[in-house]
Amino acid sequence: MTDREQYIFGTRAVMEAMESGRVIDKILIKSDLSSDMRKELTEMARNHHIPMQRVPVERLNRITRKNHQGVVAYLAAVDYWSLENLIPQLYESGANPFIVVLDGVTDVRNFGAIARTCECAGVNAIVIPEKNSVCVNADAVKTSAGALNYLPVCREKNVVSAITTLKANGFRVIGSSDRTEMLFTDCDYTDPVALVLGSEDKGISTDVMKMCDSLVKIPEFGEINSLNVSVAGGIMIYEVVKQRLNDNQIVN
Amino acid sequence: MTDREQYIFGTRAVMEAMESGRVIDKILIKSDLSSDMRKELTEMARNHHIPMQRVPVERLNRITRKNHQGVVAYLAAVDYWSLENLIPQLYESGANPFIVVLDGVTDVRNFGAIARTCECAGVNAIVIPEKNSVCVNADAVKTSAGALNYLPVCREKNVVSAITTLKANGFRVIGSSDRTEMLFTDCDYTDPVALVLGSEDKGISTDVMKMCDSLVKIPEFGEINSLNVSVAGGIMIYEVVKQRLNDNQIVN
Repeated sequence: MTDREQYIFGTRAVMEAMESGRVIDKILIKSDLSSDMRKELTEMARNHHIPMQRVPVERLNRITRKNHQGVVAYLAAVDYWSLENLIPQLYESGANPFIVVLDGVTDVRNFGAIARTCECAGVNAIVIPEKNSVCVNADAVKTSAGALNYLPVCREKNVVSAITTLKANGFRVIGSSDRTEMLFTDCDYTDPVALVLGSEDKGISTDVMKMCDSLVKIPEFGEINSLNVSVAGGIMIYEVVKQRLNDNQIVN
Repeated sequence: MTDREQYIFGTRAVMEAMESGRVIDKILIKSDLSSDMRKELTEMARNHHIPMQRVPVERLNRITRKNHQGVVAYLAAVDYWSLENLIPQLYESGANPFIVVLDGVTDVRNFGAIARTCECAGVNAIVIPEKNSVCVNADAVKTSAGALNYLPVCREKNVVSAITTLKANGFRVIGSSDRTEMLFTDCDYTDPVALVLGSEDKGISTDVMKMCDSLVKIPEFGEINSLNVSVAGGIMIYEVVKQRLNDNQIVN
């Protein structure tokens, strides 16, 4: 899927793409787009849950020199899933689901690295929010070593609503945080579980933290106290795998 | 230490630097350097265990436009240790040593990421060989998030001789490999231990594999079967930490 076209442009083309169900990551419109056009586009984008951003026309000109009419849409490199559709499928397949939720991870390399680990560890899906997240573009697929061609990505409105859905469907939600005393190895992951990873600088947000059933941390002993998020994710993800293997469960 | 000068040049200056004990990563000489000069330099470099490489003069000209006289030396961004000096210090300090050995890891980012995890996990030192390894330059220090300012790096002649030294000093040597059935969680790491990590493409070399007391693998369940080496390293390093914490040992 890495050789997919990465963007489309032109008001009509972008609207048709939305209507036909093409998976769009983000729409950029020039800041002085006529208000009629903007209204129609905005409404359609909202209905399709596609983030829209107003930018100076120069930015659009850097993306394409063709006649973009002030509208450029980035296509996603993968098809997004929704938790609502995915979760029933997981339970029906007999899986004991394991989902990783990213809260504020904006670095494409970190995202790709986490996706790569998830695919290797048999994680069932990765969840990202519509805003403050990475674009799942060709670079992400490349950094993931192709994992994103296999691992379902759910793009949900926001992390809080994603967690609400997960909890309503029987998931225990475990957040990674340094503001807790509980070690990640002291938590039980043998039931359906969602692991929430935050950004490296800020960690998971306060709202999200409040919704977690447990918060766990990786102990650190040095001077720098700063594990990379993709390494920290790998360590926690494999603790889940280990507990499930010890419990004689079939992983994926 | 990141603002250290990164190279020196000129025959005399490089020889004086070696004599005065400056830590040099590698010496580049132009391919047609006069044989007298080359002989003297080569001998001195060999005595100081510094790798030397013959390159076209154009490569040296790209490094500096000043009068390099056909000789440029890269300075290391950290002071190297030797296992022979470090191991007694570790035992005297009361530590139960834990050392990570890299076999063929040449990517500076992966090296920096592994160093970062090592520092956070209380690993006592990281071992690299003189050849087929990274240069511990300013980029490595940066990628390590500063960990390389704290974590001792031992540069040894080669990985085989490093393992010989480690085994003679009571270390169990555990290699990471996919050519084994033993899971990394089924191995005991509560005694002095050296963990050997290989390159992503080739893994650890056959000679090194033969010297390991055990080979262990991380189980994989997906399609791509390719964990990133820094993530795989993090997963194994924290298994060691976990076992030692469960054994009520003080980590670092």
